[in-house]
Amino acid sequence: MTLISEHIETDTRERILVVAERLFRQLGYQKTTVADIAKELRMSPANVYRFFESKKAIHEGVARGLMGEVEIEAQRIARTEGPAALRLRELMKTVNRMNTERYVDDSKLHEMVEVAMQEDWEVCTAHIELITGTIGEMIAQGAASGEFEVNDLMTASLCACTAMMRFFHPQMIAQCATKPGPTIDEMIDFVIAGLSPRARAN
Amino acid sequence: MTLISEHIETDTRERILVVAERLFRQLGYQKTTVADIAKELRMSPANVYRFFESKKAIHEGVARGLMGEVEIEAQRIARTEGPAALRLRELMKTVNRMNTERYVDDSKLHEMVEVAMQEDWEVCTAHIELITGTIGEMIAQGAASGEFEVNDLMTASLCACTAMMRFFHPQMIAQCATKPGPTIDEMIDFVIAGLSPRARAN
Repeated sequence: MTLISEHIETDTRERILVVAERLFRQLGYQKTTVADIAKELRMSPANVYRFFESKKAIHEGVARGLMGEVEIEAQRIARTEGPAALRLRELMKTVNRMNTERYVDDSKLHEMVEVAMQEDWEVCTAHIELITGTIGEMIAQGAASGEFEVNDLMTASLCACTAMMRFFHPQMIAQCATKPGPTIDEMIDFVIAGLSPRARAN
Repeated sequence: MTLISEHIETDTRERILVVAERLFRQLGYQKTTVADIAKELRMSPANVYRFFESKKAIHEGVARGLMGEVEIEAQRIARTEGPAALRLRELMKTVNRMNTERYVDDSKLHEMVEVAMQEDWEVCTAHIELITGTIGEMIAQGAASGEFEVNDLMTASLCACTAMMRFFHPQMIAQCATKPGPTIDEMIDFVIAGLSPRARAN
């Protein structure tokens, strides 16, 4: 019985997040209320609050889900075979593409990002750390095979990720879309150059 | 006579900008009106409009002035003597320091940046292009001396500048201040590595 009720609880939690995400996309993030979500699910707001202590917690759950998809894809690429530089490029282009689809092409979801950034959500920091860590895995693989040369793996990962801000950060993707700048492939070339073995000092 | 009246006109224009900047810092950007500026100068709003066609034009003039100071300093550094990498570092740290002082430490001026970004001001794009160009000059000097190795100067300049977004862009400086990330010196090391001569393929 415990297993079954736990299963139902998880299921309800999941259903709340699915409906919340749909309403955020339709109505926009600010305009959606817990009452709207409850109504769609034919339950009382009090029941929703049994699963999520606040409206913010629901929002974080939805954001977590959207970011989780990007993380899963990034980690999948990090675990494939092949030259590290090639896979690092694929990973970086995938993060750019998925973030663009999620938060820029969909203006209602972009509103959610703006709020998350203003309110300084822990979930965003955790997501950035995970993506940085995954990029770090690839750099470590490249360093091990001699493709890359890094003194400090953590610093190299932070720098490689930070260099891609224009292409990773939803607000920057949106703001820079029409501005002069490098293409994503040129930017990745530059990052890979920064990770590549140096010529010895003459 | 023409010369004198032109001089007075320029002077009035300049005085309007000085007063506007002071009021933006005191009252905040949104709350300052053309009437406030005119009152401080003991002139009619109509007279202010003789010099600036709109409130936005005054704002742009103030922003132009603040950005101009950064540009002058960047260009001064680009024209000094010494190894390109050393001067590139000084230039990048100066842009970071001046933008932090101007737009982040002063929350009222930060408001001005937010609006400029939202409204997609041409002055911002022109400023970014000038800073990119100045960085490009330094990279060209380094390439000429053999310190750097670049295939395409324009791409290298755009990438070096874009890689520094976390440290140059006022919104990113503010947003990232408390987040994990590389130090500015680590980031500049990474950029310089990206510009340095490669080891030949084994």
